[in-house]
Amino acid sequence: MKGLSILGSTGSIGTNVLRVVDAFPDRFSVVGLAAGGNVEVLAEQVARYRPKVVSVADEGAKERLSRLADLSSVRAVTGQDGMVEVATHPEARMVVSSAVGALGLVPTLRALEAGKDVALANKETLVMAGELMLARARETGARLLPIDSEHCALHECLEGRASEDVRRLLLTASGGPFRQRPRETFDRITREEALAHPTWRMGRKITIDSATLMNKGLEVIEAHWLFGMDASKIEVLIHPQSIVHSMVELVDGTVLAQLGVTDMRMPIQYALSFPEKWQAAIPGLDFTSAMHLDFEPPDRDRFPCLPLAYRALAAGGTAPAVLNAANEEAVAAFLDGAVAFGAIPETIEEVLATEPPTAALELEVVLAADRRARERARQALLRRAAARAIP
Amino acid sequence: MKGLSILGSTGSIGTNVLRVVDAFPDRFSVVGLAAGGNVEVLAEQVARYRPKVVSVADEGAKERLSRLADLSSVRAVTGQDGMVEVATHPEARMVVSSAVGALGLVPTLRALEAGKDVALANKETLVMAGELMLARARETGARLLPIDSEHCALHECLEGRASEDVRRLLLTASGGPFRQRPRETFDRITREEALAHPTWRMGRKITIDSATLMNKGLEVIEAHWLFGMDASKIEVLIHPQSIVHSMVELVDGTVLAQLGVTDMRMPIQYALSFPEKWQAAIPGLDFTSAMHLDFEPPDRDRFPCLPLAYRALAAGGTAPAVLNAANEEAVAAFLDGAVAFGAIPETIEEVLATEPPTAALELEVVLAADRRARERARQALLRRAAARAIP
Repeated sequence: MKGLSILGSTGSIGTNVLRVVDAFPDRFSVVGLAAGGNVEVLAEQVARYRPKVVSVADEGAKERLSRLADLSSVRAVTGQDGMVEVATHPEARMVVSSAVGALGLVPTLRALEAGKDVALANKETLVMAGELMLARARETGARLLPIDSEHCALHECLEGRASEDVRRLLLTASGGPFRQRPRETFDRITREEALAHPTWRMGRKITIDSATLMNKGLEVIEAHWLFGMDASKIEVLIHPQSIVHSMVELVDGTVLAQLGVTDMRMPIQYALSFPEKWQAAIPGLDFTSAMHLDFEPPDRDRFPCLPLAYRALAAGGTAPAVLNAANEEAVAAFLDGAVAFGAIPETIEEVLATEPPTAALELEVVLAADRRARERARQALLRRAAARAIP
Repeated sequence: MKGLSILGSTGSIGTNVLRVVDAFPDRFSVVGLAAGGNVEVLAEQVARYRPKVVSVADEGAKERLSRLADLSSVRAVTGQDGMVEVATHPEARMVVSSAVGALGLVPTLRALEAGKDVALANKETLVMAGELMLARARETGARLLPIDSEHCALHECLEGRASEDVRRLLLTASGGPFRQRPRETFDRITREEALAHPTWRMGRKITIDSATLMNKGLEVIEAHWLFGMDASKIEVLIHPQSIVHSMVELVDGTVLAQLGVTDMRMPIQYALSFPEKWQAAIPGLDFTSAMHLDFEPPDRDRFPCLPLAYRALAAGGTAPAVLNAANEEAVAAFLDGAVAFGAIPETIEEVLATEPPTAALELEVVLAADRRARERARQALLRRAAARAIP
């Protein structure tokens, strides 16, 4: 039985992690659950999995949870300290880090410091503090496994191969809902259009990131850290069917690819079972009828978030944290209906230009850069929202 | 320097092997060359690579070779004994087995008995005597590596994986030139049409085998022996672009694929360099422009050679050798213009039905089955040729 703590247990990844746990009931015990304010779903999870510790956003949420669930044998905690407690519980051997955005950084770092294996769905933490997280994992021998279909694919294709045998990584991207939309209509993109992802059903933040291609930009940075690969060796390829989850080109010219259905339980099971392979809880690809796979290079002009991510990675230090912070703020403003779709890359570019990167080897430095970038982004977004309100 | 002997050095595979050798001049010394009657090309190879031993079909060919090449420091031999001498030369560490058809069986077996690593392009030898060859390789510790883009792909995807982690092998097939040709016109197929392969440039025998899908049937049997996989776990998938060279589905539902350009030097370099990876002598896949990949199940009604191969593998023992012998005779007759395209599967089915399989653990048994099957096939083909001549 592997003890499991889940940060973000009520979200899209968290609930799928629990579906995988359900498929292998003898292999896991759920030790800790951390969620934000969705206490209705969390109460059901507490009743079903009887964790040792459960964490919610604040006292109000804890109060509401206590009315819905029997917490007599469960330790209930709150806030970031609560998440850290879930992430470092002595009985947890693996921590699934799937809290959205920068929120997950500190608990994930603490889990690595405590020597827990981390299954990472929260790519923002690696984008913000990749160097720091890798250093901690090296120190304690904790294993860092991606729960991201693309990085899971790269991990599987790279397994057992020497890094000098690798020519480049080819990260595939669905291209999002606006792959074929004319650029001149981008300013009329609505929130509903942006939330309609063609192949994957995911949370709101990552769905918008997929529409801007920032998700792929963040994944390039994530791949850089996870696989120790220079940005010049990481390429993005548009693949609308999302069946090839990513590819690795070796120095002898052969290309290895991992394919699979578009179901998050696949990379989740990969990370939870690694290095073992278990009979899938979900059906495989269907080869009994015709299948068509298309690939094309990304359009960097229509999707400036992608080159912005490469620029931040090249700048190094705190620049990716700044990129991520500005992106989170801009996406939130877009989801609030305050700014247009095009304001997302514009805001990021503006904030990146005004925040010179510094070394990112200390958590405090990263968090300070994150705070400053958010402040600058909010100002820039308010300015854009105001300009938009006055026709 | 790895000592290399090449059986079939003047053929399509052999000349490509030497192009790979040319690209890595410090890694190989050519110890032995065996060819049939193409003494013009062989004379050039002798002058360029100065092998220790060279073998040709017969004394006439040897006489012609001696007029074209300086054989003063080269031992020149003939026939099957000559091929065996090339295959077992003490300085050869690896033997490339690329003589076409059943001819290569005995020398390849002797190479394995002598503990040489064998890079196998001659799939017929494995089809005829897979059990025997595997037993010999196990006894001496010789390594058997495929030079076949599909099996090279499977080998690469399977490397380092436990066999119980594998759900099935997916062998891709271009589908040949008649993939979309209506069945009712199959009897009007000409030799020229059958020799026009859409994606691969290869020898005549294998090109016809690709047109009938027998090549894929032989590859199913080859994969069965090379990877110890039951026939029920080996599937064929039509993939007209020949970019995905084959795939492996694992028990957790993920599918691994190897992709590459359609250039035989890629699997050749894979086998010659294994387990190392060398910078390719040839360009990789081009991802800078759009790429489309299609997959569909094979049509077993229009291409009966494929189910015939499965049937022979299921029957076991000498049945695959019988299938292979009947196929070689039928393809030769078709290439001679003596019989129609449809006579190939008809003849194989007839011979398979009249030759009950026996255990194939001794070379003599296999060779006797091969001889009997050829005799029966020739009779069947003569009957068909005669019936055709009388309109």
